[in-house]
Amino acid sequence: MSFPKVGVIGAGQLARMLAVPANYLGIEFEVFSQSATDSAAQICNFVIGDYRNSEEVVAFAKMCDVVTFEHELIPQSVIKEIEKAGIKVYPSSESFIFSQNKIEMRKRCEALGLPNPRWEIHTGENPSLEFPLIAKLPMGGYDGRGVYVISNIDELENLYATIKSPILLEEKLDFSYEISVMVARSPHGQAATWPATLTVQTDGICTSTITPVPDLSEELAIQAQSIALAIAAGISLVGVMAVEMFLVGDHLVINELALRPHNSGHWSIEGAITSQFEQHLRAILDLPLGSTAMVADYAVMGNLLGGDKSDMYRPYLHLMARNPALHFHQYGKEVRPGRKIGHVTAIGADLLELRNEIEHAVDYMSGAIDE
Amino acid sequence: MSFPKVGVIGAGQLARMLAVPANYLGIEFEVFSQSATDSAAQICNFVIGDYRNSEEVVAFAKMCDVVTFEHELIPQSVIKEIEKAGIKVYPSSESFIFSQNKIEMRKRCEALGLPNPRWEIHTGENPSLEFPLIAKLPMGGYDGRGVYVISNIDELENLYATIKSPILLEEKLDFSYEISVMVARSPHGQAATWPATLTVQTDGICTSTITPVPDLSEELAIQAQSIALAIAAGISLVGVMAVEMFLVGDHLVINELALRPHNSGHWSIEGAITSQFEQHLRAILDLPLGSTAMVADYAVMGNLLGGDKSDMYRPYLHLMARNPALHFHQYGKEVRPGRKIGHVTAIGADLLELRNEIEHAVDYMSGAIDE
Repeated sequence: MSFPKVGVIGAGQLARMLAVPANYLGIEFEVFSQSATDSAAQICNFVIGDYRNSEEVVAFAKMCDVVTFEHELIPQSVIKEIEKAGIKVYPSSESFIFSQNKIEMRKRCEALGLPNPRWEIHTGENPSLEFPLIAKLPMGGYDGRGVYVISNIDELENLYATIKSPILLEEKLDFSYEISVMVARSPHGQAATWPATLTVQTDGICTSTITPVPDLSEELAIQAQSIALAIAAGISLVGVMAVEMFLVGDHLVINELALRPHNSGHWSIEGAITSQFEQHLRAILDLPLGSTAMVADYAVMGNLLGGDKSDMYRPYLHLMARNPALHFHQYGKEVRPGRKIGHVTAIGADLLELRNEIEHAVDYMSGAIDE
Repeated sequence: MSFPKVGVIGAGQLARMLAVPANYLGIEFEVFSQSATDSAAQICNFVIGDYRNSEEVVAFAKMCDVVTFEHELIPQSVIKEIEKAGIKVYPSSESFIFSQNKIEMRKRCEALGLPNPRWEIHTGENPSLEFPLIAKLPMGGYDGRGVYVISNIDELENLYATIKSPILLEEKLDFSYEISVMVARSPHGQAATWPATLTVQTDGICTSTITPVPDLSEELAIQAQSIALAIAAGISLVGVMAVEMFLVGDHLVINELALRPHNSGHWSIEGAITSQFEQHLRAILDLPLGSTAMVADYAVMGNLLGGDKSDMYRPYLHLMARNPALHFHQYGKEVRPGRKIGHVTAIGADLLELRNEIEHAVDYMSGAIDE
């Protein structure tokens, strides 16, 4: 028994951050990339190919002991080809469908008795949900794309006329805030969650996170983790998953699932004993899971979104001098407006100070402020 | 101003661990390796060459914005050729001599008024120091190699007859224990130390470390850091350096210097806000230094030395299940008896428990115990 090799389909920042614990643990690591300049391909071994081409993907998978992926775009048919070739791939095609198809996800959560919003499948008839409502394309959407607030029947008919396939409709919830729970599960069924994370959203994109969620009652914090664990078991998850939920009044409602390391878990690199990236590797390799305990009272993460500035290095001079405790992460991506190009994290006991420092760093990096 | 490129001469585990913060910070990173299978070459971009060949090294350096090294073996003449070519190389040849030549180090520490043991240069005459004494080859020794306990004049004469060049003699100190202070300094003169580390030695090799040093008085802890800072300034250090000291009675005596990331600073990867590896990058890039604050009361590190077991992966199954909070580091090296092939770290508040867990993990990995 020697060190196994893990292959990752996709070479974005998630694969880039997965490379770190692989190196630490001595796990061989290679990514299947679209180009040599992709975020992860810059810093680790890679093979170039098209993730929609099952022949290329299976050829790559055959060089690995376990295969995983870092985005939802890889077709079901390709995952099934890897499975047919007898290669371990996690999450499995049967689990991954719940990350790829929001209608399947709603059905499964309902079957598990877990708190969905009211929902229905729209195929052209009048909806039973009242307007305004939320319409979602079942597949392909993320970061707010493929999600629409629909105010009346005309808008719904227009959307359906464009899409021409079933649309998921959900009640528009009046929620206090959105949280995310990262959960990990191994093939043997061992599972673990980190504390719930507050995800602060701007225009449907997560701009910062706070862990644990401030002011969330202990009861709801435990309930959030229980929901995440129930879904993990209920879909036979292997790997890590983000379960995004809304706090509506005094109860939680499931919003979305992402069966992979997730932006809402980036804080765990510095804020927890075991990061989501190391945990994902442990899970897919069926190693015992690591401790999810935090190493500080709070961890605050801010996403660096492309802005006016294109030089992301020079800001280090000012920001590192101002706050020697900030952790910087650059993904090696070209700066484009609104694109996630990196993140910053701070851990400590003074939440107000942490939030101020992260907000300042994000604004300074983007060019929104200049001191 | 875009992200700079750092080149490292040498591709052992130190270069491998340097690659991680380079990736996080977006710094381009390449190593100059002796082979494609060297520890760091396995996980990052590399060029193959001979570090004694100044032409090859300078050609590599010309592709980089800043060059550093991870071992003491690179000849002074090669470092000077890099400098002559107008390429930034840290530590500079003028600083690095104090890491490479123990006689030069003693002279400088004396000139700085810092606590040396009694010492003299032996060139064949009778020593003024009493026996037993310590004889050291000025260059090339590490991990106890090149260091001899000399009991009488015959042994000294035999050694000198073999070496045929000046030998450093030092009084044999009756010390309580050995500590190490990691210190960082940037070209602008900003400097920072981490808390002092107890280095537990077996047969001249560091087997484990505890940070901060238990039972060291606050006065001595501060004095240890002051000595490290004084040396850093006194040799115009740029980068990180380990200053190893003995506690003799109630005072500290300088033992050795290593001008690079060092085994005694490995704990900082998980135990401090800024690791020695990130700090080394910040220092050589003249970026503001990071916080050296610890994230837990104690950090205990144990070196994995090659033993009877050759499979370093299978032990994960038992050790990760036993203690989900252990951090594993494998260097991707072939197991050979006594060779440093990895390390384990645990952080927390209960020092006794941390020590027990690290001792157990090290013994289990090596095969000394089987449960």
